[in-house]
Amino acid sequence: MGITLGELAVQFSLDLHGDPETTVTRVGTLAGADENALTFLANPQYRKQLQVTKAAVVVLDAGAVDDCPTDCLVSTNPYASYAKIAQLLHPPAPLNPGIHPTATIGDGVAVDPSAEVGAQCVVGSDVKIGPGVLLGPGCVIGDGVRIGAQTRLAAQVTLLHNVVIGERSILQPGVVIGADGFGFAADSGIWQKVPQLGSVVVGDDVEIGAQTTIDRGAIDDTVIENGVKLDNHIMIGHNVSIGEHTIIAAKVGVSGSTRIGKRCMVAAEAAFVGHIDIADDCVITARAVMNHSVTEPGVFAGLLVADEIGKWRKNAARFRSLDRFVRKLKELEKTVALLVRERDK
Amino acid sequence: MGITLGELAVQFSLDLHGDPETTVTRVGTLAGADENALTFLANPQYRKQLQVTKAAVVVLDAGAVDDCPTDCLVSTNPYASYAKIAQLLHPPAPLNPGIHPTATIGDGVAVDPSAEVGAQCVVGSDVKIGPGVLLGPGCVIGDGVRIGAQTRLAAQVTLLHNVVIGERSILQPGVVIGADGFGFAADSGIWQKVPQLGSVVVGDDVEIGAQTTIDRGAIDDTVIENGVKLDNHIMIGHNVSIGEHTIIAAKVGVSGSTRIGKRCMVAAEAAFVGHIDIADDCVITARAVMNHSVTEPGVFAGLLVADEIGKWRKNAARFRSLDRFVRKLKELEKTVALLVRERDK
Amino acid sequence: MGITLGELAVQFSLDLHGDPETTVTRVGTLAGADENALTFLANPQYRKQLQVTKAAVVVLDAGAVDDCPTDCLVSTNPYASYAKIAQLLHPPAPLNPGIHPTATIGDGVAVDPSAEVGAQCVVGSDVKIGPGVLLGPGCVIGDGVRIGAQTRLAAQVTLLHNVVIGERSILQPGVVIGADGFGFAADSGIWQKVPQLGSVVVGDDVEIGAQTTIDRGAIDDTVIENGVKLDNHIMIGHNVSIGEHTIIAAKVGVSGSTRIGKRCMVAAEAAFVGHIDIADDCVITARAVMNHSVTEPGVFAGLLVADEIGKWRKNAARFRSLDRFVRKLKELEKTVALLVRERDK
Repeated sequence: MGITLGELAVQFSLDLHGDPETTVTRVGTLAGADENALTFLANPQYRKQLQVTKAAVVVLDAGAVDDCPTDCLVSTNPYASYAKIAQLLHPPAPLNPGIHPTATIGDGVAVDPSAEVGAQCVVGSDVKIGPGVLLGPGCVIGDGVRIGAQTRLAAQVTLLHNVVIGERSILQPGVVIGADGFGFAADSGIWQKVPQLGSVVVGDDVEIGAQTTIDRGAIDDTVIENGVKLDNHIMIGHNVSIGEHTIIAAKVGVSGSTRIGKRCMVAAEAAFVGHIDIADDCVITARAVMNHSVTEPGVFAGLLVADEIGKWRKNAARFRSLDRFVRKLKELEKTVALLVRERDK
Repeated sequence: MGITLGELAVQFSLDLHGDPETTVTRVGTLAGADENALTFLANPQYRKQLQVTKAAVVVLDAGAVDDCPTDCLVSTNPYASYAKIAQLLHPPAPLNPGIHPTATIGDGVAVDPSAEVGAQCVVGSDVKIGPGVLLGPGCVIGDGVRIGAQTRLAAQVTLLHNVVIGERSILQPGVVIGADGFGFAADSGIWQKVPQLGSVVVGDDVEIGAQTTIDRGAIDDTVIENGVKLDNHIMIGHNVSIGEHTIIAAKVGVSGSTRIGKRCMVAAEAAFVGHIDIADDCVITARAVMNHSVTEPGVFAGLLVADEIGKWRKNAARFRSLDRFVRKLKELEKTVALLVRERDK
Repeated sequence: MGITLGELAVQFSLDLHGDPETTVTRVGTLAGADENALTFLANPQYRKQLQVTKAAVVVLDAGAVDDCPTDCLVSTNPYASYAKIAQLLHPPAPLNPGIHPTATIGDGVAVDPSAEVGAQCVVGSDVKIGPGVLLGPGCVIGDGVRIGAQTRLAAQVTLLHNVVIGERSILQPGVVIGADGFGFAADSGIWQKVPQLGSVVVGDDVEIGAQTTIDRGAIDDTVIENGVKLDNHIMIGHNVSIGEHTIIAAKVGVSGSTRIGKRCMVAAEAAFVGHIDIADDCVITARAVMNHSVTEPGVFAGLLVADEIGKWRKNAARFRSLDRFVRKLKELEKTVALLVRERDK
């Protein structure tokens, strides 16, 4: 398919500098796009590539127009405009509705006729699968699961019993939702398993990355609200709640019963201890560990970046005696203060 | 099913304050339990909720009895008592014994008639599956694997060839046991694969969380002893040994050939370098990295928690010159000592 | 099978001290090997075990010959020689060529007759599977995938559409290649998905550990060059490029668009922010976080190791005021300098 620049300008409310009849059929990078492709400039780091782009059109902000050698579509938010145009030009593959003959389907299952249940899927009993849902190959869906319209499970996703997924969500391969939370009670030297009896409720427009796990609640449910985006290898413990439109990068861990607010941004490998509340609109930078509740929006950091090994080792060795050094510093302050007082007498 | 408070008091050696004929059918939270539900108070943080609970009965310790508005069962360890009662009220779903017609079974496989082999499972040759075992949907079991009585693999678990799993163990979805350990020998600029010829032996009453991997030994076996509990996303390297009743939270990494003792507690995201020994009864707190052996029980920490970003950045910047500051401090000490000596002359 | 020490000496260019007619059939550890087994000494930590080994022969370096109670094969690189001998004595299990009847195969798929497609595999359309390839049980292969000769997917591996894997590579269970990269554009409080339209190209002789994920590129491809070795639970973001013969240990994260050079060594749990370039031949030690580009080979560190908890807490508490202490130190320096100047007047 193709679309003209004129149509794009109208549909996405962009200012077109160029020929409205020019047609684009796909997106490309600044460096790689050809005369049939649309590209974008959002990161100023790539401004040099703008000058040599062969793209049909570049989505950019007003400040970059004069440097653009080709047609351009001007946006106050070029990356978001690019995302929406790319969604239009590159929609997900159409479904092949129906249940693959190799899939195993339990009793009392309602699969909408417009949904696709892929090869080798196993669907338990009393499952409801909405219109336009995709279960890619090899998914395992437990008893009592509900999956809302247009949601897509790429492949090899496991949803345990009674998990609920909203509409238009996307689950990448290897996602596991509803495994038992990690609950054990110490009992005379052994660990008693605490049955994990809650479930997991995932909202609409959620994306969940490959290998990410979201454990079921101990009694109440674990909750992922609408619009949340989770990257790969994330661990969400039991009874956690994550607010709407919060975005969390790869390898983050959230311990049990912690609540993260709406519209938070959490960078890779950050972590949260259990039983804390994080306010809406907080930003947690890479590898930071939150160990207390936060009631107001804020930006939190916790990363010591790598250094040349010799330098790092010297500083790290000093860290191991930091308390002693600070004590020395305080003694020295007293001594010097005394000397100063004596001088001033 | 239901059970009377009188029966619970006898079976679990608890003191009942209330009506022995009252029946409970399920567990609930302090806030959510109704008149048919049992709940518990173990974390003092939730004491306020005790006063408004609508539960039939609360399991709690003697100190909380006077604040309890309903019947109560008094325990010296309320959380463990709750766990055992919840196990009784909410047993795992009964098995559906037999081999699902979509499962693929190799030669020489012995499946106990009381075991369930789920849909789409693939079982290699010469495998032994004990009584009451559950292989949930989509599990892959390699040649020569042994699985002991009552062990449950939830779904999509992979056990490679010759792995041995004991009795009453629970493996959550996505667990991989017996993948090749990471062994490569540097050889003129390339990496020679060192064949990984050992296996993995997992004991009885072990729980293993979603996506956790336990690699097979290089020559000897990797060993997980009885009663060990492993959370999600844990990486156990080749030839590691983990002692009885040790509990390890999510995302911990244990490098090759390290031995962790019995009854250790390891918090989330801790890590262990390779080839070290950790004594019995050690506690390793969150994100701590153990880089040396420990011969006595101890508690180890290694986490710098997040701070407001401006504050963090100032401190982190100073860290990068910490060695220099300490040198300055030491020079200053000498100078001041000299000044003091001169004054005292 | 067995092989004589004489044959080994010739084939691997080793000096034999002992009987060339002695035959070995397998490898073993120094402590566990018997008179039919070959073992090796590479780590000096194990030298004591050499003196009591019952092995038929030990691969070792010239400096250890005099301490060896049995025959030995002398190598300048005993570990690499051992690896190659072990590969010879313990080759991977032979394939069972053909397509398992439970596998699902799409249209236009070319499977070489010498390849094995295991039980319950799902292969999309237009896939090419080369000679000697193994798809273990439960693998899911998307449309348009290419897999080169002799490559082995152990089990439950997912390759999404258009992923390309080279020859002689090994993918452990749970690997996911080609899931969508994590690309979202902020758009008035919600996150617009940026379609992930590139693919992943993996070279020859690559090994990829259990649960590791390699995301597809946003527009261009993510690239893993020849000879790269990746351990378990690694996260490779979209548009990352990893150079030839680089080796990366478990749980490392590489954020989007970062380029890692050739022959780098990256220890466990290290991480890389996005959009940086790391030169060839760099070494990144455990848990170090690289946040800037590096143009020359170097060794980088970033780990504070665990300490006894009381000691750690004191130092960590001081860290939170480090900037203040350094300011005090600087003031003190000025005061002392003044005192010294006054004394010297």
